[in-house]
Amino acid sequence: MAKLQGSYLFPEINKKKKELLARNPEAKIISLGIGNTTEPLTPHIVSGLKEEVLRLGTKEGYSGYGDEQGLVGLKNKIAEKIYKNIVHGEEVFVSDGAKCDIGRLQLMFGRKVSIAVQDPSYPVYLDGSVIAGATGRYDKKTAHFKKIVYMKCNPENNFFPYLSKTQRTDLIYFCSPNNPTGAVATKEQLKQLVAFAKKNKSIIIFDSAYSEYISDKNLPKSIYEIDGSKEVAIEVSSFSKFIGFTGVRLGWTIVPDELKFDDGSLVSADWNRITTTVFNGASNIAQYGGLAALDDKGLDEMRATVAYYLENANIIKTELEKLGLETYGGKNSPYIWARFPGKESWAIFEEILEKCHVVTTPGSGFGSAGEGFLRFSAFGHREDILEAVSRLKELKF
Amino acid sequence: MAKLQGSYLFPEINKKKKELLARNPEAKIISLGIGNTTEPLTPHIVSGLKEEVLRLGTKEGYSGYGDEQGLVGLKNKIAEKIYKNIVHGEEVFVSDGAKCDIGRLQLMFGRKVSIAVQDPSYPVYLDGSVIAGATGRYDKKTAHFKKIVYMKCNPENNFFPYLSKTQRTDLIYFCSPNNPTGAVATKEQLKQLVAFAKKNKSIIIFDSAYSEYISDKNLPKSIYEIDGSKEVAIEVSSFSKFIGFTGVRLGWTIVPDELKFDDGSLVSADWNRITTTVFNGASNIAQYGGLAALDDKGLDEMRATVAYYLENANIIKTELEKLGLETYGGKNSPYIWARFPGKESWAIFEEILEKCHVVTTPGSGFGSAGEGFLRFSAFGHREDILEAVSRLKELKF
Repeated sequence: MAKLQGSYLFPEINKKKKELLARNPEAKIISLGIGNTTEPLTPHIVSGLKEEVLRLGTKEGYSGYGDEQGLVGLKNKIAEKIYKNIVHGEEVFVSDGAKCDIGRLQLMFGRKVSIAVQDPSYPVYLDGSVIAGATGRYDKKTAHFKKIVYMKCNPENNFFPYLSKTQRTDLIYFCSPNNPTGAVATKEQLKQLVAFAKKNKSIIIFDSAYSEYISDKNLPKSIYEIDGSKEVAIEVSSFSKFIGFTGVRLGWTIVPDELKFDDGSLVSADWNRITTTVFNGASNIAQYGGLAALDDKGLDEMRATVAYYLENANIIKTELEKLGLETYGGKNSPYIWARFPGKESWAIFEEILEKCHVVTTPGSGFGSAGEGFLRFSAFGHREDILEAVSRLKELKF
Repeated sequence: MAKLQGSYLFPEINKKKKELLARNPEAKIISLGIGNTTEPLTPHIVSGLKEEVLRLGTKEGYSGYGDEQGLVGLKNKIAEKIYKNIVHGEEVFVSDGAKCDIGRLQLMFGRKVSIAVQDPSYPVYLDGSVIAGATGRYDKKTAHFKKIVYMKCNPENNFFPYLSKTQRTDLIYFCSPNNPTGAVATKEQLKQLVAFAKKNKSIIIFDSAYSEYISDKNLPKSIYEIDGSKEVAIEVSSFSKFIGFTGVRLGWTIVPDELKFDDGSLVSADWNRITTTVFNGASNIAQYGGLAALDDKGLDEMRATVAYYLENANIIKTELEKLGLETYGGKNSPYIWARFPGKESWAIFEEILEKCHVVTTPGSGFGSAGEGFLRFSAFGHREDILEAVSRLKELKF
C-alpha cells in the first residue's frame, strides 16, 4: 500500500472543492467533475425496486442470501437484452458494480501478472493493481510504475495504442467508450486488439460501463462483437450510468466459457470461487431494479436517461469548441476531453474552479499522457450544464 | 488460487441438496444449514427502504455516489445505538456486508502477514487468506495450511484458545458469538485476548456479526467493551442476522483511531484507501433501511426478529438434548453445535439429509477441530423448525 501515489483522484478533487467552500461559502459550485448521475430514477425502475422492497416484507416474497452470482433471471436478461445472446446467462456474474468487480479481478489475478493500461485511464485499474502487489516501484520522474506497460492514447494516434510497439503483458485493461477521453474504439481497432491479445496469450479486461452511450450503429458496444474475443476477454460493466444506479449499486462481469488459463483450466471457475468467497451478491432490491430496467418499459426509460446526458455532452462540447478548444469524445460518450495547450491540468482545473466555480477533472489524474487535458462530465441537471457553460464563456484561453 | 481446498462449504452443501432432490423430487427438505434468514423484513424497516426508493425517483431526493465510507448519519447512528458511543462515527465504515469487508481486509493486509484462526471457524477467514496469498502449502495429512496458526476451540477448553500455548501472529481472527460453535466469549476471556494481542503486537479481527443475539447482560457484545482494545482490534459486523438483511446487503467495519501499524501510521488511513479504491459504498437503499433499523421503532423490531430466531434455537437445542446429544451454543447465539461421538461430520450430515430431509452443516467444514460435530442453524420459519425437530426424533444416535 505504501507504493500508492497521493490519494485517490476523486477524494482529492472533493477536498479542493471543500476548501473553496470554506473560503467562499456563497459559491454555487457546479460539478462537471466526477461522473456522478444526477437525474431521478425513472418510474418503471422505481416500481421494480419498490415491489421487491414490499415483497421482502411478506412471508411468501422474502428472500435472504441469493446466489452470489446473481438472480438467474437477471443474468439471462442481461445476456439477452444487453448482449443479444452473444453471451449466455451462465457467463454473466452480477455484482455491486464495475469498480468492485475490478478489485476482485485484481485479487484473482494476483501479484504475478504483468499489466498494460491505456494512458490516460480510469485510476482503479492501476491503483487496484498496486494494492494487489502487481506493480513495481513508482518512478517519480516518469510518474510511472515499474512493471506496468502504459499504452499512450492521444489525438495523435486516434486514442488507440500503437500495438506494434506495445510490449506483451498478461492483462490488458481497455475501456470503450473511454473514461476519460470519450474515445470509442471501432470494430477494426477491437479486431486488432483481440488479435494482439491472442498472439500474446493475454487477457483483455474490457470495461464497457458506458456502452449504452453509443448511438452510432457502426461502433461496437461489446468486445464480444469481435470474432474470437471470447477466448481472450473478460467484460466488466455496470447499470450505474445507464439508469442512474451509481448509488443503488449494480453491475456485472462476463467471463466466457472459452476463456482459459495457460494450463487449460477455466477462468470462470476461479472467478466463481472469488465471487462465492469474498462477495455475497448484489443487493436483491437493486437486482429487481435491474430486471425492471431490462424489460420494454425499462429499456425505453434507459434510452431516455442516456439521451438526456448525451444532450448535455453535446451542449458542453459545442461551447468548448466555440471557445476555440480542441475537444474529443462527447459523442457516443458522456465525457468530453478538452486540450489546453501549454497548461498543466491541475492549474487549469484550479483556474476554472476559482473563476467559474465549476469542478472538472484534471486529465493528468488519469495518467501522465492526460497532462494538459481536462475531462468534462455530462452528468448534471440541464440547467446546471447551461449555467456552467455560460460561466465558462467568461474564460480566455 | 490453486491452493484452495475443495469448493466453498456452502455451495458444496447446496450441491448435495440438489442431488437429493434429483433422486427424490418429492422430498420436502428443511434447511438448518446455512445461516440464512427466513422471516420477512419488519414494517418500519420496509418503510425506511421504500421511502428511499421513492426519494430516488424525485429530483430533490435523488442521490448518486455517496461517500464510500457510508452515510454520515448511519455511521453516527451505528456508533450511538450499537456501540453506546464507545466508538465514534468516523471510525465506522459502512459496507455491503461482513464477508465482503473481510475480503477487503485480507487485501489490505496482503500476503506477508501471519494469521491465527479459531478451529473451527467461518471458512472465509482462511479461504480469503489463501486467495490473498498469506498462507503456505496445504498439508493433506493434517488438513492444515502452513503459516496458519490454528487455535483449537472445543468443549475441553470452553471454546477459548489456550493462549499461553499459542504462537504469535500478525493477525488473529476471533468470532463471538462464534460461528459455528455458538460459544460466547466472556469479558475475562476477551481481556486475555486483548492482553495477548497487545503483548505480541498483533491485530485482532473481531467478528461480531451475531452480537445482538447476546441477551445475557454480563457477556460483551463488542471487543471495544474491553479497555485498551482500540489499540489492537478491528471489528467487523453486519445487519444480516439482526434484521434479515442477508439479501439486502449491509454491514460495517470499525477501525479505531488508536490502531496503528508498527511504523506509527494509522490503519484507518490504509483502510480508507482500500474502501475508496476497490469499493463504491453500500447501496443507498440498504443504508436507509439500516437507518430505520436504528431508531426506536426499528430497534424494537430488531429485538423481536432476534428473539424469534433465539426461540427457534431453544427448540432445536432442547430436542437435540432430549436425543441425548451433547450441545453447545443456542443461547445468546443462533447456532447449536452438537457432538456425534465416533461419527464423521459429513457422514452424519448425509445420514440426516437422507433420513430426515434436513440440511445441517458438517462441523469439519469449519476446520478439522469441528470433526464429529454438526452445526444446526436456528434461521427458519417456526413451523419448519418444529417439523425438523419432529423428524430428528426418529433418529437413533
